[in-house]
Order: sequence, then C-alpha cells, then structure tokens
Amino acid sequence: MLGVALLGTSRMAHVYGPKINAHNGLRLEVMFNPRESSSNAVADQYGGRAMTVLDDVLGDPAVDAVIIATPTNTHVDYIVRAAQAGKPIYCEKPLDQSLVRVDECLETLKEHRVPFMLGFNRRFDSDNAALAAAVRNGEIGRLTMLVSTSREPAPPPIEYVRNSGGYFVDATIHDIDLMCWIAGESPVQVIATGSCVHDPRICAEGDYDLPMTTLKMPSGLLVHINNSRSCAYGIDQRIEAFGDDGLLQTVNHCDENVLRWGATATEAKQPLKHFFLERYDMSFYNALGEFYSSVTEDRTPSATALDGRAALQVALACQNSAINGRAI
Amino acid sequence: MLGVALLGTSRMAHVYGPKINAHNGLRLEVMFNPRESSSNAVADQYGGRAMTVLDDVLGDPAVDAVIIATPTNTHVDYIVRAAQAGKPIYCEKPLDQSLVRVDECLETLKEHRVPFMLGFNRRFDSDNAALAAAVRNGEIGRLTMLVSTSREPAPPPIEYVRNSGGYFVDATIHDIDLMCWIAGESPVQVIATGSCVHDPRICAEGDYDLPMTTLKMPSGLLVHINNSRSCAYGIDQRIEAFGDDGLLQTVNHCDENVLRWGATATEAKQPLKHFFLERYDMSFYNALGEFYSSVTEDRTPSATALDGRAALQVALACQNSAINGRAI
Amino acid sequence: MLGVALLGTSRMAHVYGPKINAHNGLRLEVMFNPRESSSNAVADQYGGRAMTVLDDVLGDPAVDAVIIATPTNTHVDYIVRAAQAGKPIYCEKPLDQSLVRVDECLETLKEHRVPFMLGFNRRFDSDNAALAAAVRNGEIGRLTMLVSTSREPAPPPIEYVRNSGGYFVDATIHDIDLMCWIAGESPVQVIATGSCVHDPRICAEGDYDLPMTTLKMPSGLLVHINNSRSCAYGIDQRIEAFGDDGLLQTVNHCDENVLRWGATATEAKQPLKHFFLERYDMSFYNALGEFYSSVTEDRTPSATALDGRAALQVALACQNSAINGRAI
Amino acid sequence: MLGVALLGTSRMAHVYGPKINAHNGLRLEVMFNPRESSSNAVADQYGGRAMTVLDDVLGDPAVDAVIIATPTNTHVDYIVRAAQAGKPIYCEKPLDQSLVRVDECLETLKEHRVPFMLGFNRRFDSDNAALAAAVRNGEIGRLTMLVSTSREPAPPPIEYVRNSGGYFVDATIHDIDLMCWIAGESPVQVIATGSCVHDPRICAEGDYDLPMTTLKMPSGLLVHINNSRSCAYGIDQRIEAFGDDGLLQTVNHCDENVLRWGATATEAKQPLKHFFLERYDMSFYNALGEFYSSVTEDRTPSATALDGRAALQVALACQNSAINGRAI
Repeated sequence: MLGVALLGTSRMAHVYGPKINAHNGLRLEVMFNPRESSSNAVADQYGGRAMTVLDDVLGDPAVDAVIIATPTNTHVDYIVRAAQAGKPIYCEKPLDQSLVRVDECLETLKEHRVPFMLGFNRRFDSDNAALAAAVRNGEIGRLTMLVSTSREPAPPPIEYVRNSGGYFVDATIHDIDLMCWIAGESPVQVIATGSCVHDPRICAEGDYDLPMTTLKMPSGLLVHINNSRSCAYGIDQRIEAFGDDGLLQTVNHCDENVLRWGATATEAKQPLKHFFLERYDMSFYNALGEFYSSVTEDRTPSATALDGRAALQVALACQNSAINGRAI
Repeated sequence: MLGVALLGTSRMAHVYGPKINAHNGLRLEVMFNPRESSSNAVADQYGGRAMTVLDDVLGDPAVDAVIIATPTNTHVDYIVRAAQAGKPIYCEKPLDQSLVRVDECLETLKEHRVPFMLGFNRRFDSDNAALAAAVRNGEIGRLTMLVSTSREPAPPPIEYVRNSGGYFVDATIHDIDLMCWIAGESPVQVIATGSCVHDPRICAEGDYDLPMTTLKMPSGLLVHINNSRSCAYGIDQRIEAFGDDGLLQTVNHCDENVLRWGATATEAKQPLKHFFLERYDMSFYNALGEFYSSVTEDRTPSATALDGRAALQVALACQNSAINGRAI
Repeated sequence: MLGVALLGTSRMAHVYGPKINAHNGLRLEVMFNPRESSSNAVADQYGGRAMTVLDDVLGDPAVDAVIIATPTNTHVDYIVRAAQAGKPIYCEKPLDQSLVRVDECLETLKEHRVPFMLGFNRRFDSDNAALAAAVRNGEIGRLTMLVSTSREPAPPPIEYVRNSGGYFVDATIHDIDLMCWIAGESPVQVIATGSCVHDPRICAEGDYDLPMTTLKMPSGLLVHINNSRSCAYGIDQRIEAFGDDGLLQTVNHCDENVLRWGATATEAKQPLKHFFLERYDMSFYNALGEFYSSVTEDRTPSATALDGRAALQVALACQNSAINGRAI
Repeated sequence: MLGVALLGTSRMAHVYGPKINAHNGLRLEVMFNPRESSSNAVADQYGGRAMTVLDDVLGDPAVDAVIIATPTNTHVDYIVRAAQAGKPIYCEKPLDQSLVRVDECLETLKEHRVPFMLGFNRRFDSDNAALAAAVRNGEIGRLTMLVSTSREPAPPPIEYVRNSGGYFVDATIHDIDLMCWIAGESPVQVIATGSCVHDPRICAEGDYDLPMTTLKMPSGLLVHINNSRSCAYGIDQRIEAFGDDGLLQTVNHCDENVLRWGATATEAKQPLKHFFLERYDMSFYNALGEFYSSVTEDRTPSATALDGRAALQVALACQNSAINGRAI
C-alpha cells in the first residue's frame, strides 16, 4: 500500500479523495491544506489526517507519495518541494501557465529523479484509450487526420476564466495533448482562430469561448480541434481518427441507453452527461491506477511532465496565432 | 418491349401505372376496367388505351402480358382467363382468401403453363433482399431465429377490414412469405394469438389489430412475427435474422438522414416514412423488373403462385390457432 | 451500518462479496459455508468472519441481515431459518423450482414478517429501470406490446443445465419477471415453444436452448420473449416497449464506445459484453442498495417473494405449453 | 414543356441526359458537341437531335433553354453566347477558375437578364436541404459553428487534377458554397492549410490532397471544412451545424440498410456509396426540378451566378492562405 498525501481541498481534491479510497493499493494518509478548517473538513469527509504544514507532510514517513490538486499557480512550487523530499508525485494538469516556470520545474524533476505523473485524465478514458490503441495497432493504416470536438455545457464562473490563462491554455490543452499523444508527434504548424459568442464577460477579457485550431504534424497529418464553452445538449466529446484504411470515432455518453421513438422523433437518445466530472469519472480512477502501478513497478508513467510542457507550448502558440491571425 | 395491360383502377393500379411507364422494357398498352369512366380516367392519367371488355384485352395482339391490380375476389377469375389466353401474368397478392379457389387457380396455371408472378413486393425491397442474400451466403452461419416487426401507422377503413379475410390473411401473410422465403423452409408448427386494442370496429368483426405469431420450421428455426394496425411513429418494418455466427437487422427508413441533438434528446432521427406505399415504393419497381426479365429470359420468377398458396395456408393456420388457442 | 452474513461461496457469492464491501451502509460480517475450507477461503478474500454453522450465524448479534447466494435447492430452507431468527433477507433468484416449496416459504415469511427481497437484479439495471419508468410515466401512452430479446453467449456446463429446472425456470424467468414488472400485470394466457439446436446434451435432457414465449395480459398487452443459450456476438439483451404514442428500446452494451469504418464495414461497434456478470455488474450494486434502503427505511423492497412466485408460476406454465403445444 | 439543348458529351452530360428525360416538364431537344461523332453518340443514347454548331442550337426555336455540361474552360463562353441568344441557362459548376472571367460573365448576364442557375447540386440533396431548412427555421437557435467533412474515395486521374485549378477551387468550393448558403453569410477571415499524402503526382503539381479550411463569418460563426482525395470506406459526406440550442448532423448513405452483428463487430453497416454520382444522384434530379420551376415560374433560382462568384473568391483565398501560411 502506498500512503498518499492529497494536497488541496478544491473541486479536484473532492474528485480524487474518494477514488484514492477506492483503490486497493492506495491509502489516504494525509489531507493537506494550509487552512486548518479546510484540511479538517476534507479529512472528516474522506479520512486521513488533516495537516497544514507542507514540510510536515513531506517529512511524514507514512507518506509515500503526493497527489497535487491545488490551484494551478501553486503546482510548480509544490512539485519542487515534493521532488526535493524525494516523493513520487501525481499532479493535476496544467503544470503552470508559464513555460519559464514549467522549465524550472522540469529542471528540478530531472535533478531529483522522482516518479512524476501529470493528470491528463482524458488519456485514461477507456474510449480514448481504445481509439489510441487501435491507431497504434495500425487498424486504420497510416493516420492522416484527427478531428476533436470538445464542447462544454456552460461557461465557468468569470473568475475562473480570468485565472485560466485563456481558453487554449485552460481547455484546448486537453485536446492538444490527446491529439499529440494519439498521433505520436508534435506540430510543426499551428493555426488558430476564435470567436466569443456565449458570454460577453469572456469577450471583455479578450478571451474566446468558441475557438478552432488546426495543427500540422511533421508527417503531414492534419489535426482539427473545435471547442465551445457552451453546449445545449451536455458535454460533447468526440474524436475522429482518419487513416489510409479507415476511420475511428468515439461517441458521446448518456446516462441511459434507451432509444425513444414517437410522432416527432425516432431513435432519440437521452441528453448527454452534463459535466466533465461525470463524463470522465472513470478516467480518474484509471489515472490513479496508472500512477500506482508506475510507482510500484518503477517505470515511467504514460503522462509525463514533458508531455505537459509540450501541450502548453502548443496551446500558447494557438493563442498567439489566434491573436495575430497567422500560422505559427 | 412488352406491351402490358393493367387490369384495375384501384390504389394499386395507381402504384403500377407510373412504374410501368418508367420501365424501359414495358409499355403501358391497355388500361382495363369494366366501367368506362374508370378506365378512361386512368388511361388519361398514365396513357394506354382504355378498354372495358376483358376478352378484347386478352385478344389484343399488342398485349403481351397482363398485370392484375383488381380487388382480391376477382384475381383467380382474371388469372384463369389470362392463362387460357396464354398471357404472362403478374398478379397482386393475395391470390385469393380461399385455399380451394387458389388450388383451382394453380391447376389452371399448371395446365396452361404461362409465366406467372405473384406481387410479393417486399421480397424486392433492397434491404430485405440484402438480408436474405446474406443469410443464404452463410454470413451468419446456420439460421436459427427470425424476428419480424411489422406495424402500420393506422388502421385502414373498416370496409377494407371487413373484406380483408382477417389480419393474418391480409397483412401477416407478407411477413409469413418473407420469413419462409428467407428461411427456405415452411413451418411444421404455427402458434398465433392476438388482441384488438386500436379500433373497436375491428374487434366487433372478431378480427385482431395486434397479433403475434410463432412459426417453427423443420430445421428447428423459430420465427416470431409481431404486427400492429397502429403505430405512432410511422411504418415500422424491421427484420432480424439470428444465426450461429451472428445477427442481421434491417432498419427503418426516414425521409431525411439528419440527426437532431438538443436539450431533451440527442441523435434523434425524423419520424419514419408513413405508409407502405412510400416505404416500399422502390420494391414495386424492382418487382416489375423481375417480372419483365423472368418473362423475357423465359425463367420462373422469384415469387410464384405456389409461394402464394404456401403463405395463405400458414396465414389460415395462424387464424385458426389464434381463435382456438392451440398450436397447429 | 448493517452487519451482513453472506451465505454461500459460489459464483454469486463472489459477485456479492466485493459489492457488499463497496456499499457504505453494509458491512461484511460473516462468510458462511458449511465446509470450513470454503468459508475460510472467501473470508480471506473479502473479509468477514468465516463460519460453518448456520445457527451460530443467525444467532450472532453482529449479523443484522443475511444475503443468500447458495445453490437454489437450499434457498427455501435458509430463508425459513433466517425468517425464524427474525433477520432481514436478500435471496438470489429463484426462490425454488417447486411452487409447493415456494408457497411454504411464503407462508413462513408471512408469519415472521421479516423484510425480504428477491434478487431480480435486472430490474435494477439502469437502462431497464429507465425504460420501466418511462412506461409508467406515460411516455408512450397505453402499453400494448413488449418484446424481450435475451441471448447468452454460450451454454452453461451440462451439470448446471441438469439442475436448472429447465430453460424457462432457469433463465426465461428473468424476462418473465421484467415483462410483468414493466407491464404491471400478470398473464392470462401463456404460449411457448422451443427448439434445441446448440448443445445436443441439452436436447438429451429434454430441455430447450432456443425457446420463444408469448404472454397475453388482461389488458390485451402482448409480450414476446425470445431466448438463446448461444450468441456469437456476446450477451444480447434488448427490451422493446410499444405503446399508443411510441416505442422505447434498450440497447446493448460494449466495453468501448468506438465506431470503426473501413472498406468492408462502417460504423461498426465492438462485440458486446460477454457475460451477464459483466453486463449486469452495476445492477447488483443497485440491488444491494435497494435492499439496504428498504431495510433501513422499513419499507417493502421493489422485488418481493410474491414476485418470485408469480414469475415461477408463469415459467412453469411456459414449460407446460412448450411440451404440450397449447396455450395455457 | 421546355425544350432543352444539352451542351457537352462528358461524364456530366451522361448524368443530365437521362434525368432530363425523366423530368415531366423537360424535353431533350438537342445534344450538342462540336465533334459530330460525339453528339451523334449521345443523341443515340438519350434522344434529341445531334447538333455540332452552337449558333444553330441557340437559333433553334424548339430550344427553350440550355444546360451546359462542357469542360470548365468553355463555360463562360457558352454562357455569354446563350445569354446573348436570350436562352435560360443551367450551368455546371464552377463558372470558371478565374475571377476576372467570372466577372465578365456576370456582366453579360446582368445585361441580358436571362434566367441563370448554377449547378451547386449539393444544395439540392434532400439531407443537406433539410439541415439548411432546420437551421433557418431556428431549430438550433443562433448558428455558431459548421463542420463539413467531405472525403472522396480516390484521387481523380492526374490530368483532371492538372486542369482542376487546385483542390480548393475544384472541390472545397462545394463545401464553401454549402457552408455559406447554410450560414447565410460570407467569410471575413479565411485560413487554410493542407498536406499532400495520397498521390505523389498531386504533390508534384504543388496541389493538396488533404486540406483543412477555417472560415470566420461576420456574426462570429466559425466554419471548419476537412477534405481528402482518398477515403477507404467510400464517399464520406457529413455536415454538422452547431447552435445555441443544439446540433444537426447529416449522415452517410449506404446502398443497404442492414446491420451486421458478429464475433468481431456489432451493428456494422455496409461500406458507403462509392462515388459522388451515386451519393448525389437524386440531387441532380432536384436541381433540374429547381431550374425548371424557376424558369416556368419566372423567379430567381436558389443557386445563382453570384453564388458561384462568391464561392470561387473564397476558394482562391483558401489557396492563397494555404500557400502563404496566414489568415486572409
């Protein structure tokens, strides 16, 4: 059993808490938040000892690994300290919104050589994983096109948007990572554009809520990503991989598999799952599973800090392209 | 070119008229109805000479074949007379509602050896034909189960029902023919039951508007047929063939192939085509094509009078089973 | 927390063991099997104390409820003893293969008035439950037809078949229960037939591996059930509810939601989940949830012993009908 | 009846010939080709008088309208001459590959005011038309995104590619026209890129066989178009319209509607229709119908020369953007 310290008490901490408890090989040892009332609250809810001083956490012999689910701007700092303490680290994405900070972080990880996994959970969704595996197994021959549709049901609070680093860095980064991971290559050309049609406060921030991205890979593979901060029918998440021998598509998830036929519509499915936490719930279990087994088997996990850097670099290039209206 | 006399001016005559015109090898030569105003009307609409005396039609040298689309109770009489005149015959199903009359008819056809095709149009629907071909090609291995769902949008006028011979003889007979044709065998056991829930006037006639039929074939193959005289979402026509190696399903037809996603339903298709004439429109073209080529190539058409007798016999057994509550 | 004694160490005990552990309100207190090595083995695997004497289990103050997952022929005996001991009971279906024994059991339950739930898990499948709820909510108006397709991937071992009571009692009983539960009524007429095409050893037992069943309800509602002991593409489980205003269909489950398009097939899904334990895995969680809350909320669970008796009675009538070739 | 002169004896002339014959209001009067053997051949095949001198055709009193299905580089010349002769014109797309020539043509049409329809047949596909109508009827509220997938089964002969004007002008122009037509607006920003992965001879021409296009409309609506000159599973043609209230999708067409379930795949459809002539066969009938009724009802047809100019302008901008790597 790996004793785990869960850093953070935010929404993502509530995602990881019960999933750590459900994993046979992980034991929730510590809930950390500098504010005592917060750490106590989550420790009451999920178990583990509430702690408020990070050095105590990292010095605790029962803590075999840390899972970082704190606000993005604290990630690098906590990673560095955990690495110095020699603890295996699982960190929610993104590493940081700044490439400079990310590079400092990579430097530290290189120096201390602790196991590190980045929480690109969508790679661990069973459908995405099956599509990626089929591509790699050559089921559609040479891959020539990827299309990712990724639309969220509703814009987040404007405060969230303000601190998000912009849509490309906050959200498209998921698609970028998935596309590069499936493709097995990184773009040589990035073209992005965007509109802002859903929430005028997002527009006022100079951000987009309806972006479109095109990536061109060294092999000639073209990637299209379309996103929206609003979607009337739930969380629309579909990937299409097109190759010389065929096409692979992931499909959306509903809560029920019942088709309805009536006088105005036939074979109608339910509305989609509403939020990414519901749609990707299982992927977080799978991601923790990957972290656990990569640590215990002493191997590199399948989503690394370098992957995080690569995706951030592309996301920043998208932002740049959208603002300046040219390919990068 | 085969010169064709079309007998009848009913709904089915209006189905065949334009389709005869559209066929490259058929020429609409004569429109026959004993009532002059009727034959004139359809001749005006579709071309051909209006005629009112059958012997004149059958003696006309320009008439190479007859297509019978008259009321069911005249079929045998017209078939007998056309056979005696040596004309190739295409006759709308059913041959007759009485097995005795059908047997007289078969006797005459045997004696005069004219080409004869029965209008089991659903065999000529491209989807049904593809499913049947796949079964015969062994795509699902040994066939062990057939399920036919066949529901019409709304009950016909009660006068139609009164003269229809009952649901099994009027409508289930289509499914019976299709199932036996796909299976390549005829039932050893027939079990049917039924309810009357849609139209009380149908109930008053002692007929069913919601029957269920089970057929057991010599090979052990089981067949289920369910029917309804009413269906809120259009004409529901699906066949399922289950075998040792898999399953084949035909699916319903909509006018448009557009999926609709919204807040209350996703991937919703349109309502179905509404009436059998729309759903099976192409099958009548194909059936005329089969008639034409069987006559010109001097071969037995793929739907014969014997097929009609076999289906009628099973339909009558279904009726008997439903009334008496036992397997036959 | 309810302390639970799990009776039995068979396949179904392995289904319930981990699910009891996963339920927040249930605590696995005792694993019971008369054979010490067996009870020790499962206690080692899932926790709980291994016990071998039923009276000790039923007298244990830490045991608040019993879950019976033993061979069918022991169900009634264990139910009676648990009822006499005043323990709430969850019992795997069926109650017994004999109506006489079932009636004795019902008598005892009536006398001792302990909470009792029968493990008709398929009612607790979220898709089946959603379809049933939609029917009850009037989404398709008056219900007039139910069609249940229920095909298993491969025949069980012949020893299992020999002790199963025959296909109708062993397997169709699930469909019968679901259909009567959805319909909210019990059949007035039962017609069944069957073939034996998959396993000659099943035929040698005089049993069927390809049965078809028709039920007629007092309202006129007709029900069709088709089953097969063999299915090339996995576990095929579909229900269709047809009513005055429309149709509801449940669809099959695959492990992945990836569509494949290639030169020989398009939009191909994966093969289906293979076994009922995979297909209905979640339904067992839900069934335990219903048991827990019915006990703690002191209300009748939604699957009772009377439901079990009703389904058995219909299953036996099906068997009778199939053998004697008549409606019952 | 409108007497029609069909100009050209190419592939498209063979598409229009039989469809003119099938239309109740059109009569194939003249088949024109400067080469006598060619005009004779098609006149033998489809009827009409073979003619080789255009002035004779345009001066023929039996010719009420001309349908131009000649090579693209003759379109403008023939349009101008037919316009001067006062004949209503239906012309295959594109008008020309040069904006200058198109503008000359528009000038002439403006001057002579003859009815003119451009053969953007995909607007007349019933699925595309239904999607466009649903958008206009507000079924998905404000339209914010359009995605067009348009992939052909195999590259055309290299000679065709050489004279095609490049992929954007030859093929993407269809998607551009459809997108602008559905949107009801024209782009303010065009971004395109492309790869050449299927046929090295296309690469050698400096053309693309795998382009991706992004259009931004004045309203903020974003459009993505992806194309491929090769597609293993047939002709892949799908449009997706995303709006504030939902999504509309057109789906692909197979020859048969039979689903196949087996040990390695379930619910598999057939491969798609293979070629645009099969996929869009009906749309040509509908386009001729629109031409006929716009002429006889004296109204502007729903696809005009200005539409052709607009699409060409965008296609040329796409080409420019792809070559220069910047938004235009």
